[in-house]
Amino acid sequence: MSPKPKTPAESLRLACRANTHTTSTSLLAPTIQANLLVLPTRYAPSFRALCARNPVSCPLLWTTPPGTATTPLAAGADLRTDLPKYNIYVDGVLQSPRGVLDIREEWSGDHVGFLIGCSYSFETALERAGLPPKHTLCVPARTVPMFRTTVPLCPAGVFTGGVMVVSMRAYPAGRVEEVRDITRRFGRQHGEPVAWGWEGAERLGIAEKVRGGKVDFGEWVEVGEGEVPVFWGCGVTPQVAVMESRIEGVVLSHFPGCMFVSDVPAEDEAGLESVIKILDVAEEVCGGGED
Amino acid sequence: MSPKPKTPAESLRLACRANTHTTSTSLLAPTIQANLLVLPTRYAPSFRALCARNPVSCPLLWTTPPGTATTPLAAGADLRTDLPKYNIYVDGVLQSPRGVLDIREEWSGDHVGFLIGCSYSFETALERAGLPPKHTLCVPARTVPMFRTTVPLCPAGVFTGGVMVVSMRAYPAGRVEEVRDITRRFGRQHGEPVAWGWEGAERLGIAEKVRGGKVDFGEWVEVGEGEVPVFWGCGVTPQVAVMESRIEGVVLSHFPGCMFVSDVPAEDEAGLESVIKILDVAEEVCGGGED
Repeated sequence: MSPKPKTPAESLRLACRANTHTTSTSLLAPTIQANLLVLPTRYAPSFRALCARNPVSCPLLWTTPPGTATTPLAAGADLRTDLPKYNIYVDGVLQSPRGVLDIREEWSGDHVGFLIGCSYSFETALERAGLPPKHTLCVPARTVPMFRTTVPLCPAGVFTGGVMVVSMRAYPAGRVEEVRDITRRFGRQHGEPVAWGWEGAERLGIAEKVRGGKVDFGEWVEVGEGEVPVFWGCGVTPQVAVMESRIEGVVLSHFPGCMFVSDVPAEDEAGLESVIKILDVAEEVCGGGED
Repeated sequence: MSPKPKTPAESLRLACRANTHTTSTSLLAPTIQANLLVLPTRYAPSFRALCARNPVSCPLLWTTPPGTATTPLAAGADLRTDLPKYNIYVDGVLQSPRGVLDIREEWSGDHVGFLIGCSYSFETALERAGLPPKHTLCVPARTVPMFRTTVPLCPAGVFTGGVMVVSMRAYPAGRVEEVRDITRRFGRQHGEPVAWGWEGAERLGIAEKVRGGKVDFGEWVEVGEGEVPVFWGCGVTPQVAVMESRIEGVVLSHFPGCMFVSDVPAEDEAGLESVIKILDVAEEVCGGGED
């Protein structure tokens, strides 16, 4: 009996585990992708509150029990090895600007993992609508451009001083409403854009950076003639919150653009619902902890 | 048999209905108070999404079926008469700068009412902790100062271009953490502050207005020597969203500071839970409508 063929998502996770895939996961599987943040257990209640208060940039999908690096969102996955690259923070300071390949040694019994929705999850839908994000068309494909805005997060417990991070995709001005409509239903994947156009960039406090092509994370992709920048909430936001709040101890995360690829179909509303139901059970099971 | 004595909340609602109470509801009952917004039915889905995306300034407590002005949060209450004063907007423009006493004629069969949490709900808790808000100590008591910030809301459907409105209470700098702790558990009443101190006022883009005592809503109350301003999300935010989005048709709301006073005890966690459960049922029952 031959083994069941692997899905694109599973193949990708295994390639990450073997360190043969170490770059962006954009458009590599038609499933929900997720940001990862791993915190000392004592910060878990504050972080859950931060997500509840800022659901557009921090839409929480899953919380692991302490010391556990698995999730029902992907059978057999190991969150310590199955992402392309990771960041390590100590006392709020990034240790490895170019990322590391796994976090097996750093993820202790006192660490809790959080999976947060990612805008890569709606890129297949944009592509199918004839609106492929330009960073996916570059050869080689680039990581989506990301900017640190001046829009303050609503603080929660130890998490103070954070700001919203956004991803940017350029589209013809006349198609922005279509782009809004397509991404709106991906509510746990940042949903519809938070701003668009140059006026929108001004409101986010990043017009100068965008005009100059100066990304804070990811890689720059040109805004062409007749196009405007469109901005979505971004799951790198919690990493900035960790840095701004100078969280003590070891914090782990994905490397921007190098996401966790789940088995939950991104296009399937029932799939999204199952995530939400799993999450609701998780809320009951994983509550508690100390701040 | 003598009739059951009325609670402070019920007495207050009846005084509003009789137009004998027409001012601020701050500290007048130890129950949850709520902001009111009444929209043409076609805008309901966008508004629910706006609340879901901006839960700190717009924590949704209850949605009425179309044309219905009652709520299980207060037995026998009529949302068209039982608030001290109301605002009326036509095509996004405020019609009555000083407010009107009821909205019986304006609330049509095609209107849906939304109740949104209010920071007045945690003022009794602050008072009991020896931290009474200064606006409640003024003689006569004033409405809490409110400011329109430059922090953009996350847009949703027809609601674009909105900004967060905040309420302000001054406290000694050394007691801000205590104030944060007390209000944090009132999650559906804006929860912990969104900013504090003069640096916080800068982040909200309102330092100049606060230093000059120039409120956008409510009445000014001095920030004293050794005190700092503390800011919370405010349920006047949806009214600014209605104006900025130039929503067509007739929109109704409470007058800032003149809230709906419910029967749900503000201090009772079980009471809050019951609100949330009622809301969850309401989500299932009241979904739908057109945008």
